[in-house]
Formats: sequence, structure tokens, C-alpha cells
Amino acid sequence: MSELYEQLRDAITDERPVVLATVIEGPNAGAKLVLDPECADGFVSVGTLGNPGLDRVVSRDSVGELAAGRSGVRHYGPEGQANEQHVSVFVESFAPPPIMLVFGAVDFTAALARAAKLLGFKVVVADARSMFATVKRFPMADQVMVAWPDEVFDVYAERLGHHDAVCILTHDPKFDVPAVQRAVATEVGYIGVMGSRRTHATRLKRLAEVGVPQQGIDRLMAPIGLDIGSRTPEETAVSVCAEIIANRTGHAAPSLRDSDGPIHRQAPT
Amino acid sequence: MSELYEQLRDAITDERPVVLATVIEGPNAGAKLVLDPECADGFVSVGTLGNPGLDRVVSRDSVGELAAGRSGVRHYGPEGQANEQHVSVFVESFAPPPIMLVFGAVDFTAALARAAKLLGFKVVVADARSMFATVKRFPMADQVMVAWPDEVFDVYAERLGHHDAVCILTHDPKFDVPAVQRAVATEVGYIGVMGSRRTHATRLKRLAEVGVPQQGIDRLMAPIGLDIGSRTPEETAVSVCAEIIANRTGHAAPSLRDSDGPIHRQAPT
Repeated sequence: MSELYEQLRDAITDERPVVLATVIEGPNAGAKLVLDPECADGFVSVGTLGNPGLDRVVSRDSVGELAAGRSGVRHYGPEGQANEQHVSVFVESFAPPPIMLVFGAVDFTAALARAAKLLGFKVVVADARSMFATVKRFPMADQVMVAWPDEVFDVYAERLGHHDAVCILTHDPKFDVPAVQRAVATEVGYIGVMGSRRTHATRLKRLAEVGVPQQGIDRLMAPIGLDIGSRTPEETAVSVCAEIIANRTGHAAPSLRDSDGPIHRQAPT
Repeated sequence: MSELYEQLRDAITDERPVVLATVIEGPNAGAKLVLDPECADGFVSVGTLGNPGLDRVVSRDSVGELAAGRSGVRHYGPEGQANEQHVSVFVESFAPPPIMLVFGAVDFTAALARAAKLLGFKVVVADARSMFATVKRFPMADQVMVAWPDEVFDVYAERLGHHDAVCILTHDPKFDVPAVQRAVATEVGYIGVMGSRRTHATRLKRLAEVGVPQQGIDRLMAPIGLDIGSRTPEETAVSVCAEIIANRTGHAAPSLRDSDGPIHRQAPT
């Protein structure tokens, strides 16, 4: 059993997604199986639920649950048959928190990091300027990196998936062009880019010049955030988080990208 | 300079929100601008920070800060450019923070209170059930009241205005009918009511029975929040805050109220 718990512990420590399946009713109650699909050694499976057929079917189902970050009880026949209630298995997913990479240690960054923490993100703030990228300015971030976009993506690119987000707040082509280039080369679910419509038009030219393909450009949410009239950093942070949720769930929300006119309008107050 | 201080003094004396912006670093250190958006003469601006572009951008940002009742230092380029550190401006808001009254000490309440704090609200959580309405459960709230809606509105009704919000999360007609009755009798800018479409249909009947007029009913945002597919308490909190911002700024965002179908849909994950 100890090998099983070691695998589980190592995966959680390394922030790899891992799943623990336990027989909670039926023969072999208490039997356990750990699945560690992204282990350096490949897809690792430790333990058994007491039957090879059951192990195979539960492994298949557990990987699906893990991908969706879900835990719950599933029922099977003695050898893993569907639509039987002979064995109850509790499938417990240990999914690492979603990651948000924020490029640019600017005024908006702290508000965005606070809002993202509310949604459970692991927040990484990165800026090449050591004077701005400090833990003192961003105590709410999980990591503050004094680094260029390339260095950040060298660490995180492989781990970015559907639930993760990249927010580029730099307003400076020196940073945001390489950040966009690397972001569109990942599987990340959300890429938001701050800046006026005019800034973005200029940016699009530069991105085309460096060879970012149109399907990459199409993934950019720019200007960043939902079109709800946000003015302050905190309001903008809420609009970005709302856009991330809407993107993830596939809801047709009014993104600034899809509207026109100025981003900041005079409130009717 | 004396005209500037007179405007500031008059606004404070008359309890109008007013903001004083002062250059604290950069050229023209000490230069000041007073913005008095709700002056009887309309939007009044007195003074200058030394550059028309800077004045314009600082005015825009200051009105946002004022709306949230916040003060702080912001950084700009010489002509008001974002993400530059050439000029530091201290923006001092003279306004009470907006108030959010949350009725119902339920699972969603803590997440909503945290998100509302991000937007600068003074958050009051109220529930008649002393076992649920505790400071221990809602340490992020500014005030936790063990009270019926009538008692809460007896304290706050007169102070509620355009920037304030009432969120009714109780799901229980015993609480939410009196809360809606009192809320629609105030000038509060946002009234959100939680519950399924079916619950709300039943609620509407009861509200009509107790004589809530149609223009009161029309003010209710129910189901509460933008239609962005939120499922968790934290996602719902973001959707409520985004709806509050959109309401305040007059943006046409896709509220759940104005859509149909179930509130929680399966994500395409």
C-alpha cells in the first residue's frame, strides 16, 4: 500500500493531476488504485481493485473524471460491467488548480490577481522589470517571476490546458508580442490581451510580421474582458474573470473584442 | 487655488462625492484637480495637473475611484499614458463606500462578500437565524446582523443610492418577500434575487399579492447574475459583481433575467 500512497503524494506535490479509486461497497472493500497519467515514467497505475477487468474499466472512467476535475461514486459489475451495482467505487480526483499567467506588473495586475484567487487560480505574475515584479506589490500572487515571457513559458507551457488562462497586460510590444507568440502555441483555454483598440490594431500587424497564424490571432480576447463598462482595475478584473468563465462554459457573453467604440465610456451616473 | 478648495469644501459640506487629484511626483508636483461630478451645476472640474491629456485620463480614472470610494496613488506618462511611471498622482476620494446588503447567510454569501469587497463595497450580511449569521462564517463582511429584513432596512434604507446593491439569497419567501418589498421602496441601484426561474415565478405571485408595484418588480435582477454559465459560488459571485457593474454603467450585458433555459448548464469540457 505504501507504494500507492507515495505515488499519490508525489503527484500532488508536483502538481500533476492524479486520481485515487477506492472500492467502498462490494468484494474487496477498501481496495485502492492510483492513476497518475502524467508521470515522468508515462501513465503509471499502482494498486488493484481486486479484478483486472474492473481495474481496466475504472481506469478508463477515472481518467475522464480527472480531466473534468470531478469526484464521485460509480457502480460496476464484478468484472467492471456497466449498468450493474455489484461494486461501488469512489473516484477521487486530485486536479491541480488552474493556472493564470499574468504578464505585466502594472496597476491592474494586483486587482486581477485578487479576483483570480477568488476563482481558485494559481496566479503567476511575471515582468522582466525587477523593480515592478515584487512580492511586496503582489502578495496575493502564488509566484512572482522577474522574467521574460519566454522564460515563463519554458516553465509553464506544457502544463497549460483548457482551464488555464494567460492575461497579457503589458501594453508593450517588447513583452506582449513574444507572450502572444508563446501563448498561442499552447493549449491554454483563455488568452486575454489588454490595450485600446488602436494599440491592438498595431499589435496585430506586428504579430502577423512575426508569423503568428490567423487561428492563433482568433484565440485572442482583445481588448480583454466583457463589455460591461468597467473603469477601475477592480471592475476590469471582474470583467476579465467573467469573460474567462463565459469562455470556459461556452456562453455567448458580450466581450469587448466583439463590440466597437471606446472601452471606457462615461457612466450615466 | 482658493476656488479649488472652495469647490472641495462645498461638495464635502453638502455630502456630494468629490475627488481631489494631486501630482505627488513628476513635473508639476503639487498641481491639483478637483472633480465634483454631482454638483448642482453639472460635472464640475477645477484646476489642472499641468497637461490636458493627463487631466483627461486622471479625470476618467478618478471618477471610477470615486464611484468605488477609493483613494490611492496612480501612475501615468507625461500626457496620461497608461503603464508609465513618469507622473504619480494621489487620487483622494471623499465619498462613503457603496453599500451591499446581502440577505441570507448561505453557502454563496461568503463568496459574494469576498468579491464585493474587491469592488470596495461595505458588505452587510443579514439573516434572522443566529446560528448562520456569525462573524466566524463571514469574517470578510463589514457587519453581520442577526436581523429580519425590516430591521436591516430600518438602519440602511435612507442611505441606499445608485451605487449601492441589495442581494437577496434566502430562497425563502418568509425572508425574501419582505426584503424585496423594502428594497424596491429605496433608491438602491441594484436588486438581485437568487433562485431558479420556477422559484422566481412563485415569488412574483406573492410579491403581487402583497402589493409590490410592477415598476418595483421590473427593477429585480432575478435570477441574479450575468448569463455566463457560472456553477460554483465563486463563479456566481463574479457573475453578480459583473451584473452590478453593467447595471451601474448602463451596459447591455446578458443577464440571466433576460435569457431563458436552465441557469446551470453542463460545460462543454
